[in-house]
Amino acid sequence: MSNKIGKQTIKFDSKPSIISSYSVVGPKEDEGPLSDFFDLKIDNDLFDEKSWELAESKMLKEAISSAIENINLTANDIDFLLSGDLLNQLMSSSFAARDLKIPFLGLYGACSTMTESMCIGSMMLDGNYANKIAVSASSHFSSAERQFRFPLELGNQRAMTSQWTVTGAGSFILSNDNKYNHLPRITHATIGKVIDLGVKDASNMGAAMAPSAADTIAMHLSDTNRDISYYDLVVSGDLGHVGHRLCKEILHDRGIKEINNYTDCGILIFDRETQDTHAGGSGCGCSGVVFSGYIYKKLLKKELKKVLLMSTGALLSVTSSQQGQSIPGIAHAVSIEID
Amino acid sequence: MSNKIGKQTIKFDSKPSIISSYSVVGPKEDEGPLSDFFDLKIDNDLFDEKSWELAESKMLKEAISSAIENINLTANDIDFLLSGDLLNQLMSSSFAARDLKIPFLGLYGACSTMTESMCIGSMMLDGNYANKIAVSASSHFSSAERQFRFPLELGNQRAMTSQWTVTGAGSFILSNDNKYNHLPRITHATIGKVIDLGVKDASNMGAAMAPSAADTIAMHLSDTNRDISYYDLVVSGDLGHVGHRLCKEILHDRGIKEINNYTDCGILIFDRETQDTHAGGSGCGCSGVVFSGYIYKKLLKKELKKVLLMSTGALLSVTSSQQGQSIPGIAHAVSIEID
Repeated sequence: MSNKIGKQTIKFDSKPSIISSYSVVGPKEDEGPLSDFFDLKIDNDLFDEKSWELAESKMLKEAISSAIENINLTANDIDFLLSGDLLNQLMSSSFAARDLKIPFLGLYGACSTMTESMCIGSMMLDGNYANKIAVSASSHFSSAERQFRFPLELGNQRAMTSQWTVTGAGSFILSNDNKYNHLPRITHATIGKVIDLGVKDASNMGAAMAPSAADTIAMHLSDTNRDISYYDLVVSGDLGHVGHRLCKEILHDRGIKEINNYTDCGILIFDRETQDTHAGGSGCGCSGVVFSGYIYKKLLKKELKKVLLMSTGALLSVTSSQQGQSIPGIAHAVSIEID
Repeated sequence: MSNKIGKQTIKFDSKPSIISSYSVVGPKEDEGPLSDFFDLKIDNDLFDEKSWELAESKMLKEAISSAIENINLTANDIDFLLSGDLLNQLMSSSFAARDLKIPFLGLYGACSTMTESMCIGSMMLDGNYANKIAVSASSHFSSAERQFRFPLELGNQRAMTSQWTVTGAGSFILSNDNKYNHLPRITHATIGKVIDLGVKDASNMGAAMAPSAADTIAMHLSDTNRDISYYDLVVSGDLGHVGHRLCKEILHDRGIKEINNYTDCGILIFDRETQDTHAGGSGCGCSGVVFSGYIYKKLLKKELKKVLLMSTGALLSVTSSQQGQSIPGIAHAVSIEID
């Protein structure tokens, strides 16, 4: 019997539980509206390392190891680690995996990596290929800026459509053990298609990602035969203010018109008026820390009971942009519920 | 009941079949000893595109779509595409996935990506999350050289330990449908750990990857309680001449001493005497095309019946090298048998 329903959605009979969560954020995120929810706030964005890349990897390792330790486990209790980040060749995840010594699967879906790891991790648990899996993702404003855009020292002006890469790492421990059934559980995963409507402006990722984001939400609702109102909260990863608005417009065109429960992690994490982040937050870490820090805790308190979390990725590279290519987008969604 | 055996190995009760395979290679690979086995040989390494990166993506798309068409299917029949490559942000795979419109999971394990995709694809089939999955990987000498090393125009001398990135793309269609049980089937997957013994020489990837490769072979044999002689062939992805020798030495130190059935795709693909490739082939495409072009066909003819395929990856980036970091290695193995 297939566990796939519809075109792109997988239903988990065992509903793997999210048994632990840990978020690490940088100073700017600590100044934002969700500050109180994060687990560890670093006060300098080098995290006492020699480079931003090493700082990002250290944040990720800290998020994973603390998520493990918080439930009195050790790295040896974790079957597999699934992780990714924005750095070329996943430098942050690769070096964290080296130090943690957990069998490792590296993933890349740009900023969609957080839910990509949750989708694959849930399949591995539901299929009984593991008992406990760590999933994680990270990003860092300074390492991303210099890799994808300009040296920070240049002090370039930023477009109003541009987003601010979140300095943060989120990690979760997932398990298929029945004893965790009282915790938030992943019921479905919807794997996204790559969609590219021709946006070439690397300072407008929201517009590049919105079509794939809207498609994944629409496919999820169609595959599960649900109305969007089924969820207490639908939250995309990092479309920001521009992409969130466009995503709603596309959904409207596809007949999903009554949308009162949809927001975006990139909107939630920064204060638009005071933090000068223009179109909002982005980066793999954005949905990682907002889900870990904020939404997961609301699920535990049952202030939310049904959440659709969808991280969104812009699959551009410096090379593809320099070669005049447009920006493909992707989005993967996981449905998370607590009884 | 868990399908995980031992520390790092997954056993597939349904043994997903490899129902189609397609390889695309460049001119140099066409001049090598395996030429007759490859499906499509391009006569210029730009493949009539404007850049090597776009050429690589076109090769990958060609490999995937031909693997699909060869068994009279269409992209619509494929549930999910799992793919990765060496280019920053998986440019090759992302653009191929955009054009193919198959729901997509991007993977990065450097040159280990070919078997990483087979490991995850097999889990998704064995767990009944899909019926047919396309797995693939690509690399391109010219796009890799300029991204990881030097502009080709510089004409840099290459160290004798350096390897030659294969210009090639391999793709396989996997299925859990019983009607394909007469074809080669994936029985086990062993997920590797990241190991880094401190090698910093980016011109000696074989040495950087050998420890993780040897560890994955040793863990696979230990987890499955098998002697290495169980296999007709154990083949690593791209350790090349240097890494292959080191891997055998490490296995010897771990008590695996009688090794007469172990070779490496990077050794097989080029002629060491005449092709000036120094330590042999490398790149995600190396194990992709050697398995697709050569080993898979030997399995079909039952000249080989039990093969352990292990792609091997060096998880360095230009940034990590410039920051003085050593090179972490990883290797994932799949056991493939035909009745």
